Amino acid sequence: MKSKEKPIILVTNDDGITAPGIRNLVEAVRDLGHIVVVAPDKPQSGMGHAITIGHPLRMNKMEVFADIEAWQVSGTPVDCVKLAVDKVLHRKPDLCVSGINHGANHSINVIYSGTMSAAMEAAIEGIPSIGFSLMDYSMEADFAPAREVVSKLVKQVLAMDAEKHFLLNVNIPSVSSELIAGIKVCRQAYAKYEEDFDERRDPHGRKYYWLTGEFVNSDKGKDTDVWALQNNYVSVVPVSIDFTDHAMKTKLEQAWAG
Amino acid sequence: MKSKEKPIILVTNDDGITAPGIRNLVEAVRDLGHIVVVAPDKPQSGMGHAITIGHPLRMNKMEVFADIEAWQVSGTPVDCVKLAVDKVLHRKPDLCVSGINHGANHSINVIYSGTMSAAMEAAIEGIPSIGFSLMDYSMEADFAPAREVVSKLVKQVLAMDAEKHFLLNVNIPSVSSELIAGIKVCRQAYAKYEEDFDERRDPHGRKYYWLTGEFVNSDKGKDTDVWALQNNYVSVVPVSIDFTDHAMKTKLEQAWAG
Repeated sequence: MKSKEKPIILVTNDDGITAPGIRNLVEAVRDLGHIVVVAPDKPQSGMGHAITIGHPLRMNKMEVFADIEAWQVSGTPVDCVKLAVDKVLHRKPDLCVSGINHGANHSINVIYSGTMSAAMEAAIEGIPSIGFSLMDYSMEADFAPAREVVSKLVKQVLAMDAEKHFLLNVNIPSVSSELIAGIKVCRQAYAKYEEDFDERRDPHGRKYYWLTGEFVNSDKGKDTDVWALQNNYVSVVPVSIDFTDHAMKTKLEQAWAG
Repeated sequence: MKSKEKPIILVTNDDGITAPGIRNLVEAVRDLGHIVVVAPDKPQSGMGHAITIGHPLRMNKMEVFADIEAWQVSGTPVDCVKLAVDKVLHRKPDLCVSGINHGANHSINVIYSGTMSAAMEAAIEGIPSIGFSLMDYSMEADFAPAREVVSKLVKQVLAMDAEKHFLLNVNIPSVSSELIAGIKVCRQAYAKYEEDFDERRDPHGRKYYWLTGEFVNSDKGKDTDVWALQNNYVSVVPVSIDFTDHAMKTKLEQAWAG
């Protein structure tokens, strides 16, 4: 994006169009381009890369951000990006930003996160894209330091000649601006959740299960997003839409030949 | 898996526990280990890596496969794998197989596919895992050639000392066994859908949208899964759970330094 025209920036999220996080994202990028918001009409956390194929979608124009065109969609974050490109913008935006998510999306969360799935969908479609998450689940979180980070990174990416499938997973520590140690380019930590379903019985005696789980990071590398966040850095993980394990491909080709 | 004990094989899918595909998968692996089925109680296509966090899950034992322990779950394919490990098996199985999906999951479909998300969830948890898909959407598809492919590949993987996060995306052409050209280890093709929402009006005059789209493959490589399938090979793509774009990481570190 090096042209002199105002870039078109698509804004979406997974916490829904009324979440404080998307309001802060809009404020952070408002002066950096022509902003259009297309976001879910209700929270969609944990939706991963789900798309709506079995029933139709609704999309309605909303007056939720001053002087900003905004639409709410009855589907998933991925549906929002698809509808934005095909039915709202009628073209690819110059950049897609997703978030600011209420809660971290570091390490393996990239795969469960609706925030990152929206950004990944944009990258698949050839739109440079960034997902932003703040390490604070509270609806009363202070987004002011995050707004500064968003503004700085969006300017940097707009100034680049970003590649077609450019995609960043950005996580921001929940500390004041002075305490942020810097921005660190990282790899995704090998971490996961140890599941533990809470087993209960309903008033009729039938069992049901609530998903709970403990986050476990066995990756001790100092180049990971988890390490960066623990040390008050903003973590930036470039994400690939090619999921091929190329090293394993070579191994299998050798092992299975002949 | 090189021990002499019978391996425990977890079977799941995204088309639901009553789909012909999972019935054929169970038949293909029935003699290769101790089989336990945990699958969704209804079709979950396009659910990607969605998890159920906002409401509880139900799980019920079903008599659907002769002499095979089987459970149906009210959630997504990923929920099924999590519940299977935590509440049914109380341990990690030796292998997880997912499918056989009704329809292809090559190229970028790996990210939308519930079949592959179930397999990926198992790989994240350290369980070697394979997702199988047949290039035929019909409920009357002939799965006999696919059963042979499944049996062959599962034996091969059980005989390996598979790595912790070992994950394969296997797609099978819909042709008779004699016409299958072989098994080919591939990379994921760079292909995508060109979305085109079908815009309609309900009886009250309000707009709604159905997702449609055309598959477009701009990747002309002969080492891709799309090429393999077009040439009647079974495509085997090893999939990584590390989504980091390592080449871009190096580039950004250099570009953003100082």
